[in-house]
Amino acid sequence: MDYDRIFKAAIDRLHSEGRYRVFIDILRTKGQYPNAQCFAGHNGPKPITVWCSNDYLGMGQHPAVVAAMEEALHSVGAGSGGTRNIGGNTHYHVELERELASLHGKQGALLFTSGYVSNEAALSTLGKLLPGCIIFSDELNHASMIAGIRNSGCEKKVFRHNDLEHLEELLAATPAETPKLIAFESVYSMDGDIAPIAEICDLADKYEALTYLDEVHAVGMYGASGGGISERDGVAHRVTLIEGTLGKAYGVMGGYVTASTDIIDCIRSYAPGFIFTTSLSPVLVAGALASVKHLKASADERTAQQSAAALLKAKFADAGLPVMPSVTHIVPLLVGCPVKAKGISDILLAEYGLYVQPINYPTVPRGTERLRFTPGPHHSAEMMDELVGALVEIWDRLELRLAA
Amino acid sequence: MDYDRIFKAAIDRLHSEGRYRVFIDILRTKGQYPNAQCFAGHNGPKPITVWCSNDYLGMGQHPAVVAAMEEALHSVGAGSGGTRNIGGNTHYHVELERELASLHGKQGALLFTSGYVSNEAALSTLGKLLPGCIIFSDELNHASMIAGIRNSGCEKKVFRHNDLEHLEELLAATPAETPKLIAFESVYSMDGDIAPIAEICDLADKYEALTYLDEVHAVGMYGASGGGISERDGVAHRVTLIEGTLGKAYGVMGGYVTASTDIIDCIRSYAPGFIFTTSLSPVLVAGALASVKHLKASADERTAQQSAAALLKAKFADAGLPVMPSVTHIVPLLVGCPVKAKGISDILLAEYGLYVQPINYPTVPRGTERLRFTPGPHHSAEMMDELVGALVEIWDRLELRLAA
Ligand SMILES: Cc1ncc(COP(=O)(O)O)c(C=O)c1O
Ligand SMILES: Cc1ncc(COP(=O)(O)O)c(C=O)c1O
Repeated sequence: MDYDRIFKAAIDRLHSEGRYRVFIDILRTKGQYPNAQCFAGHNGPKPITVWCSNDYLGMGQHPAVVAAMEEALHSVGAGSGGTRNIGGNTHYHVELERELASLHGKQGALLFTSGYVSNEAALSTLGKLLPGCIIFSDELNHASMIAGIRNSGCEKKVFRHNDLEHLEELLAATPAETPKLIAFESVYSMDGDIAPIAEICDLADKYEALTYLDEVHAVGMYGASGGGISERDGVAHRVTLIEGTLGKAYGVMGGYVTASTDIIDCIRSYAPGFIFTTSLSPVLVAGALASVKHLKASADERTAQQSAAALLKAKFADAGLPVMPSVTHIVPLLVGCPVKAKGISDILLAEYGLYVQPINYPTVPRGTERLRFTPGPHHSAEMMDELVGALVEIWDRLELRLAA
Repeated sequence: MDYDRIFKAAIDRLHSEGRYRVFIDILRTKGQYPNAQCFAGHNGPKPITVWCSNDYLGMGQHPAVVAAMEEALHSVGAGSGGTRNIGGNTHYHVELERELASLHGKQGALLFTSGYVSNEAALSTLGKLLPGCIIFSDELNHASMIAGIRNSGCEKKVFRHNDLEHLEELLAATPAETPKLIAFESVYSMDGDIAPIAEICDLADKYEALTYLDEVHAVGMYGASGGGISERDGVAHRVTLIEGTLGKAYGVMGGYVTASTDIIDCIRSYAPGFIFTTSLSPVLVAGALASVKHLKASADERTAQQSAAALLKAKFADAGLPVMPSVTHIVPLLVGCPVKAKGISDILLAEYGLYVQPINYPTVPRGTERLRFTPGPHHSAEMMDELVGALVEIWDRLELRLAA
């Protein structure tokens, strides 16, 4: 049995499709985001500016977050030492869950080691508990939701992205007595568009469906207290379950769901991905707690991020760069070819010290390969001008088209 | 559609079977493990001794680990800010992977957010890449391996626990040209017994199978440099893939696999559970790196742990307590009834300030409910005497049987 040949062939497929991934090795510099060090080749570290971090607000370097983590590290140590049930349920976990439930106006919350695991565990468990449930899933849902839906064993009906008519068509075609769950995101992170949450809730009411909302790319950034698009739109109470991450705008790591007491208790009691794993380090939990609390009280970071995104979009448009029509903090630039997207990114890093990762298939559909910028409160207008200048030069060099 | 009733009924089932779980809310005290604070009811925190932590060697409070985390926190900040491919590949990750590959004598290693995710992602991906593969799985394999095998879509054949004859029977009954993978653990954490790794590798050679070994409860604790039972037995080079955690003996959080360059590259490139999630916080990675390095060089913690386990087993046996026949650092006491196991645990915590979680179904088979003690380098003989005294008193009070 030539196992080696099989594994080699799997790698070769990626190379031949131009989508073999090379990880850029970096260290951000606390207190100086978006500046970082890049370790490439053997020439020692080189200073770069990061334009593609999902630490959207720079909370990973916020003094309150760092201080809370340092305090937890010194008072309780590095890890939790156990699963939530066996020795790994710390007071930090209990407090953060209370805070997150309150953030989304829900009765309860549950922490997971990541947003990915929270989606996988919650969706698969809900689906298993509801006999004969059908899950209605937006076609652009994240891989972690897709995994959870698959592992639920439920039938899945995929509706066209943000398409209410198509969703209603599918709901209407399903018997009234069948349990139904609609799974979708608020901010879609590759295009930067937003789901019509209220209208989806209207359909859920009409057809008696539960709703599952991933707010991973919105929590901390939208709503008066950072509760996401569902808070901004005043519809959080209408959504059955809201899921989020602690690893993006909150700047730390971990994931969570919030819902009614009974639903949270079901997931807590039945989800293997929650039960059989060492709980989040109390150091991370303490940091996330400080971050959530800070962004509940302060809108400064959110406001600065929105200004930065608006400014960068305007500068891209003025320079004739093909900025895609995002209505959020995400600023994608269409390239449309995996090799060119990687080529631009390589030149930006090597010659300009500007880091933005190319986004290729399967993260986005083929033909829509892009560069995805995430300007935040710490990206200045000067940094943007430097970036635009570099892009215009590279666009010219590679004979890509600029708008008139 | 009465969704609430369905969720309530699911919770009621757990109550009626006596296996509804109540999490004990604790905070360990760094520098004073196994001492901790327990938050129960509204009487404020109360000092307790923890007897069931999987921070087996107390590395979560080791000065080298804490210092490394503090340093990383101050130099790079709280989180990685991205997936490994998009901005979240730090130099710490690269270094720790190199260290782990070397620990197990493999070409490559890959980090995950947890041991659970590493098993799920690695097994499901290997299974998907090997056409028609059959996975041979020990009947006591951990939930995370079971999830990975299920998600691989492969046919699974379960062999009786550590039963070489049964495993060979199943292998022999499978066509020679079928790809095969044998998945098992080294130390089984609820009984404390050990797999015959060399003999399983002999069978793998004979029937041309790959081998997948979970060393989660052995890394850091066995082998001259903490490489686990496969290092102790001198067979690491014979195992295809070795998986481990950074959350137990290493005292932090995270998981990993080590294997050949091509296998690691396949998992890195194809596993959604690796690709589509924020990478481990560099703070955790720095702590784990310090912990792995320390336990590579120092055997003191391992030796002290083994002495503590031997002493506690002897003290239990001398007192006539029903200690189960573990050959490792794990010291289980058989109770055989979920309600009594919980009862003993409740009295220990409430009256004696001693914390050991009852282990009930589904973590162990019904009828083998137990208390599971994990003595470590920081549990003194005096602490053990206090524990034995309390147990004997409770055994007597609950009219449980002591051996003559
Ligand atoms: C929409 C969405 N959901 C969930 C996740 C997973 O969150 P985490 O990074 O915390 O695992 C991501 C990205 O990683 C995401 O983009
Ligand atoms: C045998 C085994 N494998 C894997 C895991 C998962 O490791 P982690 O806690 O790092 O998720 C555990 C326990 O949690 C385990 O007991």
